[in-house]
Amino acid sequence: MTWTLARRTEAMNPSAIREILKLTERADIISFAGGLPSASTFPIEAMREASARVLAEAPQAALQYATSDGYGPLREWVAADLVKQGLRVDPSQVLITTGSQQGLDLLAKVLIDSGSSVLVETPTYLGALQAFTPMEPRYAGVACDEEGPIVDAMAEAARAARGDARFFYLLPNFQNPTGQSISAARRAALAERAAALGLPLVEDNPYGDLWFDEAPPASLASHAPGNAAYLGSFSKVLAPGLRLGYVVAPAQLGPKLLQAKQAADLHTPIFNQRIVHEVIRSGFLDGHVPTIRALYKAQRDAMLAALDRHMPGGVRWNRPAGGMFLWLRLPAGLSATALLPKAVERGVAFVPGAPFFVDGEPDNTMRLSFVTASAEQIERGIAALGAVLGEAIAARS
Amino acid sequence: MTWTLARRTEAMNPSAIREILKLTERADIISFAGGLPSASTFPIEAMREASARVLAEAPQAALQYATSDGYGPLREWVAADLVKQGLRVDPSQVLITTGSQQGLDLLAKVLIDSGSSVLVETPTYLGALQAFTPMEPRYAGVACDEEGPIVDAMAEAARAARGDARFFYLLPNFQNPTGQSISAARRAALAERAAALGLPLVEDNPYGDLWFDEAPPASLASHAPGNAAYLGSFSKVLAPGLRLGYVVAPAQLGPKLLQAKQAADLHTPIFNQRIVHEVIRSGFLDGHVPTIRALYKAQRDAMLAALDRHMPGGVRWNRPAGGMFLWLRLPAGLSATALLPKAVERGVAFVPGAPFFVDGEPDNTMRLSFVTASAEQIERGIAALGAVLGEAIAARS
Repeated sequence: MTWTLARRTEAMNPSAIREILKLTERADIISFAGGLPSASTFPIEAMREASARVLAEAPQAALQYATSDGYGPLREWVAADLVKQGLRVDPSQVLITTGSQQGLDLLAKVLIDSGSSVLVETPTYLGALQAFTPMEPRYAGVACDEEGPIVDAMAEAARAARGDARFFYLLPNFQNPTGQSISAARRAALAERAAALGLPLVEDNPYGDLWFDEAPPASLASHAPGNAAYLGSFSKVLAPGLRLGYVVAPAQLGPKLLQAKQAADLHTPIFNQRIVHEVIRSGFLDGHVPTIRALYKAQRDAMLAALDRHMPGGVRWNRPAGGMFLWLRLPAGLSATALLPKAVERGVAFVPGAPFFVDGEPDNTMRLSFVTASAEQIERGIAALGAVLGEAIAARS
Repeated sequence: MTWTLARRTEAMNPSAIREILKLTERADIISFAGGLPSASTFPIEAMREASARVLAEAPQAALQYATSDGYGPLREWVAADLVKQGLRVDPSQVLITTGSQQGLDLLAKVLIDSGSSVLVETPTYLGALQAFTPMEPRYAGVACDEEGPIVDAMAEAARAARGDARFFYLLPNFQNPTGQSISAARRAALAERAAALGLPLVEDNPYGDLWFDEAPPASLASHAPGNAAYLGSFSKVLAPGLRLGYVVAPAQLGPKLLQAKQAADLHTPIFNQRIVHEVIRSGFLDGHVPTIRALYKAQRDAMLAALDRHMPGGVRWNRPAGGMFLWLRLPAGLSATALLPKAVERGVAFVPGAPFFVDGEPDNTMRLSFVTASAEQIERGIAALGAVLGEAIAARS
């Protein structure tokens, strides 16, 4: 063949999770494997009204080319909304992106040279690794404890990168995959040490609004003025099929991010930007998001109760305070990957935890989504999973 | 500052055209500088009906995450439509992208290594250069005559690249910026020699449907099976604000392009994909596109007539058979860039041709769009431009 592939494609391989998800699309499988929000939360009526209004009031502007930085009123809305994250930003700092995934792609292009280092939590969001990998970074995993990434571990990883660590990527709220959050004290400590190290932070916050009992602490970026980029998304509070997110970055990065954005897709669909702005402009989310929180909290509680009932001894899990995911740890020596086909045979699916680690890790963890299955399915699915794990533990001893 | 920018950002600088366009957004300027389609052609009523139908019939699917390759029925529609380009492709080869600009970004990631070569027409589409440049290619311009790129010049550029030319990027139909097309015979000759050279082709066809008197010849890709990627777009036949395009690539590239697409934005907004499919599924474009052709042909004729009336001797221009643009050549020694401020003073704007060349070129060309100004504005604007050029020519002699 005549086509020569770029070297970077050697590391661009299918997501293990997407391959697994294909196996679990059978209708008879109860899947805790997905990363989808619950479609029952999508505000369909509001979307209908907003779409009709945009096409009645500004049809030509909504269908024409638009500026690369995003729809002005939407950027203003985002800037105002970020005050609740402890962030005071000018609308001109808000770059609207085609999902926050695109924000990760743009940051990678602008910040990562081949062979430079990127620090990540262990585990971390797989989609971020997919976005960063084409720019060929070295990854350094930062060990975490109950409160979040360990400050000394971050400093050690930065030192090991010999001054060429481009940023530390973190999801402080209800992280994908673990559902864990970083404590307020740890946020402050990480931000302070990162500034001293000259280590920029990239904060990804798609789940922050999905808290169950109390709002999370102020954003990491609020502790790190000038030293953090912040990514947000409408995928979890409205709907992901619109692909609408944003990046807020220090002024130094603005022109190059904008340039990368123009090159990537000229601009995010203005049709979608105007519709979403029409939906949210008058406080819609203030009433809507609490309904998502209530649903997801009930789903989490159903899963925690089912886990209590059905999990054999030696299996541990956390109690996420928000978000969509829960993290399960099997006794050492068991392989979640090896158990997946057995679970699928029993009609239940999960995502093994191993692909979320950059530096190898025992394969005894799994991610469970509690948001898309019904309470009844959660009960049956967790019972089936408990049986599979119980047999595996019994077979070992 | 602590942020270190990636080396590739050194070449990522604002588009000269976008900067110029900012100057010409004053309401009192008659602008031939834009690259926008005429908003009067947008099918607003069809969009309203389709949006309402999608949100009534499949609201949750239209708002949920979707597959990275695109909406199945839309991919099938594209594959069937490509028969008129002389292409027989399987729907699985069609990757839906967030505008065809994203297709250029994905091809760049998958095919360009730093220091490898990319061949382009002289002049070529500036947005493609913006998409390719972050991957740090060397550019080689291929000289063109009336029929298109010169076959021997292509072969010479490929040889000069010492086997590391990754592809030749071409717009065979009503090119941006010149409005010129490649003849049928030249397409066949380019494809044959490129195959012999082991030089892949990337064919970009956003304007092909906008022909005035007869459809263009079969696509370049139809002459180059296995050796060409093909990009298409809904921006010029429906509306650009939806950001919907596609890439069709040989099977060898498919998995890596899909991987790059996942990393870039997970998927193109499924909401937009379903709405566009709903608009076009029953032959809508068969009636709609001829109305765009008729409008743009009348606009071209108005501009040609005005040019005949008002241009001083020594200024030459072409007679595009379709598309949106016309190419004007000034007498040698005049600078279109230097004349732009004078033209803006007189209330008319154009885009200087120089930024469309990769290898330096006398600055005596300009691109004129004939699609967004009214016939009356065209008459006034060309008269003003003719006066500016006449004075410049007189001042030289």
